[in-house]
Amino acid sequence: MRLTRWISAAAFAAASFGVVAEQSAPNIIYIVGDGMGFEYISAYRYAYDDPNQPGLSATEFDDLLRGSATTYPDDDTLVTDSAAGATALSTGTKSYNGAIAVDSQHQPLQTLMQKARNHGWSTGAVVTSQVNHATPAAFFTHNVSRRNYDAIADEMATQTGENQWSFDVMLGGGLSYFKRNDKDWISVLQNQGMTVVTDFADLTRVQQTPVLGLFAPVGLPHAIDDDVNRLAYMTSNALRLLSAKDKPFALLIEGSQIDWCGHANDIACAVREMDSLNRTLRVVREFRQQHPNTIVVVTADHSTGGLTLGRDGEYAWFAQRVMKINASIEVMTADLLGMPGTEWKTYLQKQMPGLAFTAEQWQQLLAPAGIKDVKARKAAISDALVAVTADVTGTGWTTHGHTGVDVPVLAAGPTSEQLQGYMNNTDIAHHLCALIR
Amino acid sequence: MRLTRWISAAAFAAASFGVVAEQSAPNIIYIVGDGMGFEYISAYRYAYDDPNQPGLSATEFDDLLRGSATTYPDDDTLVTDSAAGATALSTGTKSYNGAIAVDSQHQPLQTLMQKARNHGWSTGAVVTSQVNHATPAAFFTHNVSRRNYDAIADEMATQTGENQWSFDVMLGGGLSYFKRNDKDWISVLQNQGMTVVTDFADLTRVQQTPVLGLFAPVGLPHAIDDDVNRLAYMTSNALRLLSAKDKPFALLIEGSQIDWCGHANDIACAVREMDSLNRTLRVVREFRQQHPNTIVVVTADHSTGGLTLGRDGEYAWFAQRVMKINASIEVMTADLLGMPGTEWKTYLQKQMPGLAFTAEQWQQLLAPAGIKDVKARKAAISDALVAVTADVTGTGWTTHGHTGVDVPVLAAGPTSEQLQGYMNNTDIAHHLCALIR
Ligand SMILES: [Zn+2]
Ligand SMILES: [Zn+2]
Repeated sequence: MRLTRWISAAAFAAASFGVVAEQSAPNIIYIVGDGMGFEYISAYRYAYDDPNQPGLSATEFDDLLRGSATTYPDDDTLVTDSAAGATALSTGTKSYNGAIAVDSQHQPLQTLMQKARNHGWSTGAVVTSQVNHATPAAFFTHNVSRRNYDAIADEMATQTGENQWSFDVMLGGGLSYFKRNDKDWISVLQNQGMTVVTDFADLTRVQQTPVLGLFAPVGLPHAIDDDVNRLAYMTSNALRLLSAKDKPFALLIEGSQIDWCGHANDIACAVREMDSLNRTLRVVREFRQQHPNTIVVVTADHSTGGLTLGRDGEYAWFAQRVMKINASIEVMTADLLGMPGTEWKTYLQKQMPGLAFTAEQWQQLLAPAGIKDVKARKAAISDALVAVTADVTGTGWTTHGHTGVDVPVLAAGPTSEQLQGYMNNTDIAHHLCALIR
Repeated sequence: MRLTRWISAAAFAAASFGVVAEQSAPNIIYIVGDGMGFEYISAYRYAYDDPNQPGLSATEFDDLLRGSATTYPDDDTLVTDSAAGATALSTGTKSYNGAIAVDSQHQPLQTLMQKARNHGWSTGAVVTSQVNHATPAAFFTHNVSRRNYDAIADEMATQTGENQWSFDVMLGGGLSYFKRNDKDWISVLQNQGMTVVTDFADLTRVQQTPVLGLFAPVGLPHAIDDDVNRLAYMTSNALRLLSAKDKPFALLIEGSQIDWCGHANDIACAVREMDSLNRTLRVVREFRQQHPNTIVVVTADHSTGGLTLGRDGEYAWFAQRVMKINASIEVMTADLLGMPGTEWKTYLQKQMPGLAFTAEQWQQLLAPAGIKDVKARKAAISDALVAVTADVTGTGWTTHGHTGVDVPVLAAGPTSEQLQGYMNNTDIAHHLCALIR
């Protein structure tokens, strides 16, 4: 599924933020780049550099970097999944891989969003995955397994008080979990007074909370296959709605699909997701300028894919070649699968214009057309695209899973100077939770 | 060649630093972990963690981390070598790979050490490579190519004024470049009044500068095959000698072989080099406590090997297994090469005690014994050790060369707070050079 690139500059600029009176407790904007290891920031910086300007182009990340955080879960593997990572970031307690805000004994842990709610704050989340995916789930619900998607959706949809839910604003994908054969939460929620939107264009017209925005059946399409502004656009509207209230708020923003592109070993996909996050950070920076009593923390739950810039002994990474790839490997694979082999070369030249593949690379790319079995053909197409795009761009990958390297911690705003140097991911949660009082 | 593990705790503690009167210009201690990407700090932290203590054990790196730096050279590859990296760090100008403090037009660039000298400062270097290797070379000499080792040694040995050289203290390896068939610099230098030592034990007895210490024919052995304290020991003595003078000093310290272990894709080797650097940072911290007017910057010229903690889809990195490997792949390869195949298994079990290799891994390790050609056998032994140690520890590598990811910047002392967030490697040189006045 692809959304059209419909978000106009006008619609985007329309969301402006009123300046409210200074409050003692700061707003918290907690931004997670899922899978965003340091190497993703480097890759993004080079891919989006303007080669006609001297030096490297500035990014929103530059002045925010303050330190790094470990990501290990509560076992001896040292490598976390997104659920344990998000649980550490939301509750300050490490748990097992798969845990959604429960500890290793399956006991629920208080999340930052719960604490904010208990203190009368507004809360929200903006993600590009389904809203019941591991990271937002670990901020708003509790479950022994991230795989219990329906149960997590049910918990999100269930009132926590009279006409009150755990969130004021929840924007992302996941409609199919809230409108199921066995349960139509959408009707229930609307009857209970929640605004539900499923079309991006309707979001600017929403004037009151709570609001649930579900803009895709599961996750949103990858940014590279969609409008790269969607996360910034959702964020802009979430900030508009949350800042209209006369109380502090805690907002989770997740660049959910950096990780997904990393799992796919798809570098072009990954840098577009980083661009999407960079545009979102720009919106947050503008908000912060109008609302200085706002702390922003940007971090990752782990790094994904074992990404390296350079491989196989060659001292080079070809950033500009990365930017010549205009579709995700996932979409190219699906498209090729439904297309006679005779059309593949033209299609691939159209999706990756200007990339001069060698005869050997063309052979690698076109060979899967000869495979009869559909499942095997699909896997072979994807593998060939991974291998050739990695080769031609000089990108290294060591896994389709996660790695254990420390992740960046970026921060700005009141008390952010205390997040300095090396820290544990749980330290971030402790720091932010202590601000809720 | 292996040095015995002779550096006693007593000899090590003997070097103490007198407290001198506060001076306006700060001492500069510029520490380069060659090849030390963020992932090397993560690997070190986990490998040296005490599993019997809660949380992760503290390291000398923890509170120093302040930001990251790009490393790209003056071309469009984005991936630097150590010469261009060191040139950027020493001169503030990016150049081509291979350049030793010259620009892309081969013109000499003023180095930090030259500027310090011009302002009457003391200068020094402590490295574990040969002292005429790329990094120290780019701080003290100028050459169109890092490969001109003899010419670089000649420039280091040549007086820059009456009884004056470009350095007061120069400690590391490289004796074979200073005592060659065509030139015996050692006699010349001693006749000119320089103290030359070639035995570690003699270093504590040196009371005056200039001093040249060359403790190995080329580079020192890897820390894993040697006394891990040697860099800290040399640093301790360099600081003792430099701080005895009534003027500021600039000291380069290089953990030279993190890079070499990375090139070899040898994780056990790499974490021992990191331990060596950590011990050195402890010495520097103690010095800084006694001499607060000292700025310390720790960074890397690039990352090496495409190291990742985790590989092949498995969510685990086996830190404790890394610590069961007690020799470098280089030494194990040489030892196996000179040994009948019947003795290999016993030898490998002795060097890597407690690592339970699978039958398949044993087969992989022992197969090269059947190769007749010595050169091919050597390569096959090394490749098998790389593959099996990576596999058993869950370590990923993508290259035997360098990568383009940004590197950590750690700093402490006066004005270090200005080194914050994202920076270019040349910014570090500009910042430190501006302190020399
Ligand atoms: Zn993931
Ligand atoms: Zn190197």
